[in-house]
Amino acid sequence: MTKRTRSAKRAGRKPRPKFSLAQRPFAQLRNPYAPLEVVDAEAVELLHDASMRILEEVGLEMLSGEARELMVEHGARIDPKSGYVRIGREIVMEKIAAAPREFTLHARNPARNSTYGGNHINFSIVSSPPNCSDLDHGRRAGNFEDYCKFLKLGQVFNIVSVIAGYPVEPADLPVHTRHLDAYLAFITLSEKPWHVYSLGNGRVEDGLEMVRIARGVTNEQLRREPSILTVVNTNSPLKVDKPMLEGAMTMARHGQPVVVTPFTLAGAMSPVTLAGALAQQNAEALGVIALIQMAAPGAPVMYGGFTSNVDMKSGSPAFGTPEYAKAALAGGQLARRYGLPYRTSNVNASNCVDAQAAWESEMSLWSAVMAHGNMIKHSGGWLEGGLCASFEKLIIDMEMAQMMAETLAPPEVSEETLALDAIREVGAGGHFFGSAHTIARYENAFYAPLVADWRNFETWQEAGSEDAARRANTLFKKILEHYEPPPLDPGIREELEAYVARRRAEIRPE
Amino acid sequence: MTKRTRSAKRAGRKPRPKFSLAQRPFAQLRNPYAPLEVVDAEAVELLHDASMRILEEVGLEMLSGEARELMVEHGARIDPKSGYVRIGREIVMEKIAAAPREFTLHARNPARNSTYGGNHINFSIVSSPPNCSDLDHGRRAGNFEDYCKFLKLGQVFNIVSVIAGYPVEPADLPVHTRHLDAYLAFITLSEKPWHVYSLGNGRVEDGLEMVRIARGVTNEQLRREPSILTVVNTNSPLKVDKPMLEGAMTMARHGQPVVVTPFTLAGAMSPVTLAGALAQQNAEALGVIALIQMAAPGAPVMYGGFTSNVDMKSGSPAFGTPEYAKAALAGGQLARRYGLPYRTSNVNASNCVDAQAAWESEMSLWSAVMAHGNMIKHSGGWLEGGLCASFEKLIIDMEMAQMMAETLAPPEVSEETLALDAIREVGAGGHFFGSAHTIARYENAFYAPLVADWRNFETWQEAGSEDAARRANTLFKKILEHYEPPPLDPGIREELEAYVARRRAEIRPE
Repeated sequence: MTKRTRSAKRAGRKPRPKFSLAQRPFAQLRNPYAPLEVVDAEAVELLHDASMRILEEVGLEMLSGEARELMVEHGARIDPKSGYVRIGREIVMEKIAAAPREFTLHARNPARNSTYGGNHINFSIVSSPPNCSDLDHGRRAGNFEDYCKFLKLGQVFNIVSVIAGYPVEPADLPVHTRHLDAYLAFITLSEKPWHVYSLGNGRVEDGLEMVRIARGVTNEQLRREPSILTVVNTNSPLKVDKPMLEGAMTMARHGQPVVVTPFTLAGAMSPVTLAGALAQQNAEALGVIALIQMAAPGAPVMYGGFTSNVDMKSGSPAFGTPEYAKAALAGGQLARRYGLPYRTSNVNASNCVDAQAAWESEMSLWSAVMAHGNMIKHSGGWLEGGLCASFEKLIIDMEMAQMMAETLAPPEVSEETLALDAIREVGAGGHFFGSAHTIARYENAFYAPLVADWRNFETWQEAGSEDAARRANTLFKKILEHYEPPPLDPGIREELEAYVARRRAEIRPE
Repeated sequence: MTKRTRSAKRAGRKPRPKFSLAQRPFAQLRNPYAPLEVVDAEAVELLHDASMRILEEVGLEMLSGEARELMVEHGARIDPKSGYVRIGREIVMEKIAAAPREFTLHARNPARNSTYGGNHINFSIVSSPPNCSDLDHGRRAGNFEDYCKFLKLGQVFNIVSVIAGYPVEPADLPVHTRHLDAYLAFITLSEKPWHVYSLGNGRVEDGLEMVRIARGVTNEQLRREPSILTVVNTNSPLKVDKPMLEGAMTMARHGQPVVVTPFTLAGAMSPVTLAGALAQQNAEALGVIALIQMAAPGAPVMYGGFTSNVDMKSGSPAFGTPEYAKAALAGGQLARRYGLPYRTSNVNASNCVDAQAAWESEMSLWSAVMAHGNMIKHSGGWLEGGLCASFEKLIIDMEMAQMMAETLAPPEVSEETLALDAIREVGAGGHFFGSAHTIARYENAFYAPLVADWRNFETWQEAGSEDAARRANTLFKKILEHYEPPPLDPGIREELEAYVARRRAEIRPE
């Protein structure tokens, strides 16, 4: 009992009620249901074969000499005319077979470790938008203050198990040292595993060193126990940039997971047909994963799927569409064919926190879950096709993710829960509110919502007719007001701060 | 060519562009994917056994002497103390085995026939709310003008295959003849199969006669070709009202389908545990279906599931919750166990057309579809847990249903769609907008949205920052403005009007 509550009690006053969020304890989520297969086994083989032909007959433009050399060493050929790297299917399949089916990300608090692969599910909050918004101050360029607020929200919600990128670009920080501040905030404001961008080796190595310090482990232990991840996006079609490739190889050589996600927008960066877009996605993902396994056999990787379609009228990317859902589901089938953990996303293209934002997100979320996605990126706050991180959308996404988690807990069917005695006791036309069976269970019987409002219309109207976005606005501010940083050993904090200070002085503006 | 367009052409002016809705042609929708099973086979048997014990050991309160007599004739017993009808599992199983696995509803336009059972899916618009609303005029009591508007919208959307009740109560019409106006509007404003409420035999028989006239068939043909349906809700727990029972028996004797849907809100009208609520749902549904099969062996029926939970704080019903989703999925498993077509719903408890309305609806919709629901009721306009029919929500629901239909079309994987030639042609770093493969397909390549707005933020903002509900408001009015009633033979119209006039004079206020 704290001094404050003691003295409040002594004075006969009640202590200020502690704010408590409607959520279940942190736990590793699993999907106990069978995945949904949108294409049959034969179609999976056709997709596989087409992607192998792309790698064999067209090739990938790998913009790193080191990567090209490594691939040639392992049997690939450089097409003299295009300079693309062509690689036979036997080599690809042999290399990707070395990747683990499952791996665990080690958080600085071991109670927050999370596993990727099999039927595990992990939600991360939004990453990488240039802008952010809330209903109070509207849309603005990303900045470090908002960046920190998003991290705090990601820390508080137990449904979030990983921070897979900058929730918004902290664009007010100097570019050349921005990553140092960003990493320090990851470590101090959250205790969950985090992410470095593969933008060259310097940033990656700072991340590796800072996570090592944060966990208080040796380089060797860090290699055995992966703790940070990176996402490599190909520059579709068929091109992979140099910093991405080199960052990925460095991460892999340190035993840290690389998520390889082609961004194959059908009709723009890939064929207008889903099959063509998926074949290209598969070729790009497997080509880069094969390279990673050449650089570091057995390094953890994830197969990323991000096939969606453009609006053929405006050329705008669309998300959470039927095409997106089917591609996410087929992507899961491909990842399972290769025994690779699968990364998907919760995305939408709405410009505000309205019904569209929710229906497109739910389309993404259901397809991600039914695809057995192991990491569902952007599951908190993504808006505008990824150009804006919204505080209200984050809350709504947390509700949707929590609801999904609860849906993934099969109903218990037993003599106790079948409740024949209660049914007998209540009889025809009675009600169960007061029955002993209800009273013993009602407190935790059902999912408790964050912002869903189930009051009747009149009560809701009298209370101000607030829609879900407005209620989410109130909630995110309340959470931030009550936020408490997770404990961090003062020695470790000092070491991290000293590292950042030293590196800040060393790194020259680019 | 009309005179107007001819003269417009002659004058060198373009004719006024005809309004066309972004939708696919009418087609019977099927679900090609495997259903999602939330409980295992053993749990299904436990649920079955518990529901049989409820029927054997507790019984149902059947508030119709005719129904009780019929059940006793077929081997049921009346418990002397409670008066409940108890019935052995052998009798129940034998009776429900007579029900068809699948049946077709015959529309007055045969091109709008729809089939229930197997993997068929049929969407109906909202039914039975006392209120309706739109953004222009707010919330108001149901009335005949709004009733007709909803029917017109239901007729226009090809994704709707059945009108399963009054979309809103036309409360401004006199109670005793209201059904005559309601039925005439069903027939004249729409050409899709419709619904009569089982509120005593008079209303049911008027419906049977009017649909017979509308289709221009004999009673015998109508019996062979069901054309209207009714939904029987039990008065849970374990009670069934007299007009419901008698209407159901009359419908069945005329060969028309009866949907039996217990409304088992866990924690209120059924046990707080999902297993208990489902056991009770199953007992009530099978008990009434057995009665129907006693009245008319082989009559078409549907197994209805409507188990959700109450908010244990306020006692308000909640919809589209994780509990709702799991109950809908388990309900599908039960319906399949008995070989019965399955009815589910698209529901939510929001008080406005916001993100909550959409996420709860998508939770309902995905679970209904993954449960292999054959009729998904309330799939256009339901709001406030069914107390309000919203015009904007109807449009948004149509978008969600259309998107689901598109998701249920597996991607075609073939040499053509794998598009290797296009991938080869475009090469690394190119784009597919201008490729021959894209140009040949772009017009119908992707789902075309009704109200989703995929423009970038700046363009959207300049155009007025309208959210999805506001855009839906514009669209529903535009559709109504361009609505044209489906053709109806003038002789049939005359006969219907004469019937209504005669019955209006005959029926005395109750």
